[in-house]
Amino acid sequence: MEACGLIVEYNPFHNGHLYHVKKARQITKADVIIAIMSGSFLQRGEPAIIDKYYRAQMALQAGVDLVIELPYAFAVQNSELFARGAVQLLHALNGKHLCFGSESGRVAPFEKHYKQMKQNKTQYQHTLKNMLSRGQSFPSASKHAVEMIFPELPLDITKPNNILGFSYIKEILDSNLPIQPHTIKRIKNNYHDVQITNSIASATSIRTKLIKQNEKHDAILSTIPHSSYKQLTYYKEKTGIWHHWENYFPYLHYKVTTMSTNDLAQIEGVDEGLEYRIKKTAPFAVSFDDWMKQLKTKRYTWTRLQRMFVHILTHTTKQEMNPLKELKKMPYIRILGMNAIGQTYLNSQRNACIAPFISRYSGKMHPLLTVEERASRIYYSPLPRKVQKQMIYQEFRGPIIDKN
Amino acid sequence: MEACGLIVEYNPFHNGHLYHVKKARQITKADVIIAIMSGSFLQRGEPAIIDKYYRAQMALQAGVDLVIELPYAFAVQNSELFARGAVQLLHALNGKHLCFGSESGRVAPFEKHYKQMKQNKTQYQHTLKNMLSRGQSFPSASKHAVEMIFPELPLDITKPNNILGFSYIKEILDSNLPIQPHTIKRIKNNYHDVQITNSIASATSIRTKLIKQNEKHDAILSTIPHSSYKQLTYYKEKTGIWHHWENYFPYLHYKVTTMSTNDLAQIEGVDEGLEYRIKKTAPFAVSFDDWMKQLKTKRYTWTRLQRMFVHILTHTTKQEMNPLKELKKMPYIRILGMNAIGQTYLNSQRNACIAPFISRYSGKMHPLLTVEERASRIYYSPLPRKVQKQMIYQEFRGPIIDKN
Repeated sequence: MEACGLIVEYNPFHNGHLYHVKKARQITKADVIIAIMSGSFLQRGEPAIIDKYYRAQMALQAGVDLVIELPYAFAVQNSELFARGAVQLLHALNGKHLCFGSESGRVAPFEKHYKQMKQNKTQYQHTLKNMLSRGQSFPSASKHAVEMIFPELPLDITKPNNILGFSYIKEILDSNLPIQPHTIKRIKNNYHDVQITNSIASATSIRTKLIKQNEKHDAILSTIPHSSYKQLTYYKEKTGIWHHWENYFPYLHYKVTTMSTNDLAQIEGVDEGLEYRIKKTAPFAVSFDDWMKQLKTKRYTWTRLQRMFVHILTHTTKQEMNPLKELKKMPYIRILGMNAIGQTYLNSQRNACIAPFISRYSGKMHPLLTVEERASRIYYSPLPRKVQKQMIYQEFRGPIIDKN
Repeated sequence: MEACGLIVEYNPFHNGHLYHVKKARQITKADVIIAIMSGSFLQRGEPAIIDKYYRAQMALQAGVDLVIELPYAFAVQNSELFARGAVQLLHALNGKHLCFGSESGRVAPFEKHYKQMKQNKTQYQHTLKNMLSRGQSFPSASKHAVEMIFPELPLDITKPNNILGFSYIKEILDSNLPIQPHTIKRIKNNYHDVQITNSIASATSIRTKLIKQNEKHDAILSTIPHSSYKQLTYYKEKTGIWHHWENYFPYLHYKVTTMSTNDLAQIEGVDEGLEYRIKKTAPFAVSFDDWMKQLKTKRYTWTRLQRMFVHILTHTTKQEMNPLKELKKMPYIRILGMNAIGQTYLNSQRNACIAPFISRYSGKMHPLLTVEERASRIYYSPLPRKVQKQMIYQEFRGPIIDKN
């Protein structure tokens, strides 16, 4: 059996994702579709709208065979670390294909980009550093550096899916992994769109409709599979909410109040004196959005600041994270859900899979799991305490296959 | 002008307190009644039912002339440190009398107790240590030690107001302060009473009626001055709540989730491996009361555990607190409210007062104030964020006289 991996967040699963799953199967002819999915918190520094188990169910009901958790330590990171964790996890599962969406639609430009970058690495890094030192944000600086060093490059690296796609290719080629990359062109919507204009809408626009505008069935149902809509509904019936940053604002704000600037500087992502800016703005912030606007400068991207706030919320320190970033191989594989095909694949791969499956938390855990458990518990904080307990219970119980 | 100090919490101000104010004036013939009052959090390890400014107003409307804040670092402590802070603060204000309620009703037994304790200090401490090492709680161990060493003592030191009274006398005599102690016998209710049986009811029973049983006017109004009832009502109209531990449970629980056992062990009051017990019980606790019951053993008194939880909530560390406990003189005086008499007294004492008046927080604050500011901000955490901002504003604005 051959497996194709998709690197996803499904926040929530929508028609564009459905198209991705179908196309991946068609292009790669893989027997199994594996989704490597972020857990409680996402790459852009946000809580997932519903928890990872309900999102895994969305994926299974739409044709994915196996859903694997991308650990927090890689999920809530810049595209390079995010890609490293996800690609290495796919490799640990013996996945032979990777299929990603991109604005480009062809793999060749990514590979060409990679080669040119590698050849001119020193020159590029020097220019990038120069741009950054002038106070530009990373995406802006890297765009300008690329334009200066590689005026001929066909890939627009400022497009979010191109950035991610490039990071996947880079990880595969850097680590010389036996994974064949494929890309499909994203269709009919722009990543940052807020309006739902047709049946393929961005996850961002769908969340806006769901959370801020409290839109009813029809507008949403035209853009996501019915099964996804049902999971969204079940989750809200069970917990009372769809998660978004404002649910966490009271905890985040309280947390910052309890912390000194020294404490803050220990936290992942709190760099370059941001601790002073955070403490200075805290007394005035009346909502998460308000706080973000007070913090935002040209130097910091919105997502970088959001990721930093996730790390503050979950009290994830540099000391914990730095060793994890150096991990070259995934120490374990954690299953969020699977169907019969996924199960058969795992059985067939028992000896080929590089990492063991983790069935539950234990007293002496891998540092990645310690971080994961804390993030999970905190993810459920906005729920009534008794519901929190029920939700976290599944985190400990499974549904997992133990390799041993 | 001569001033008499009362050491109080007014949580809330009730008929017993009114009796205390009137009797103190009558016995001491003082021109001015000064209340030294705990601020946001109280000696028994609880949030005050309404904030310190509203409680100061209760006191002024019932005949107190001047209300001074007992700093958090002394307020949320055992009776010895609580008494030290309060008595030293009264001394800093040049107070000549101290009047406290007690089960005893006479000062002589307190002074006799003090002398005997001093004479047999070593023997007593040895016995006490012995009792504690057998796992007894402090009040129980000290009761038994006293019974063994001083079978003749007339003072029942297990009664909460006798313990406090003794601590006041001890501080006055230890520091040889020019303060005359007086005591009045507490009447018609028992400190731990939950039922309101007559017009003098304990603050505990009144809070129970207000918060848990949501009792209407009549049952409460017979036990507190009308002006106190109005402040309670105003506060709830303004903020939406009366504060109690369950309002803080989500924050406390979240906080503990973000902390390792090592982090917890840095916090004031987390001793003897309590950090492990806290982390172990956290996943199962569904309310503050539930958590307390899971933590409670014979060894720890309820109030000691509650104080520990206040310090965790406010992230007050041993490193911050240990130097503060050693303070022998109050470094500043902070006014929560006063009437014309209080104002006149302060003017007349400008040169006699030992410590300066603090008008507002500043960038470089005394460590006592750093702790105070954090505790205050966190006290308002359960309120809607915009209301929090309004409430904390008065903390910065005054109503204060600056000595300089």
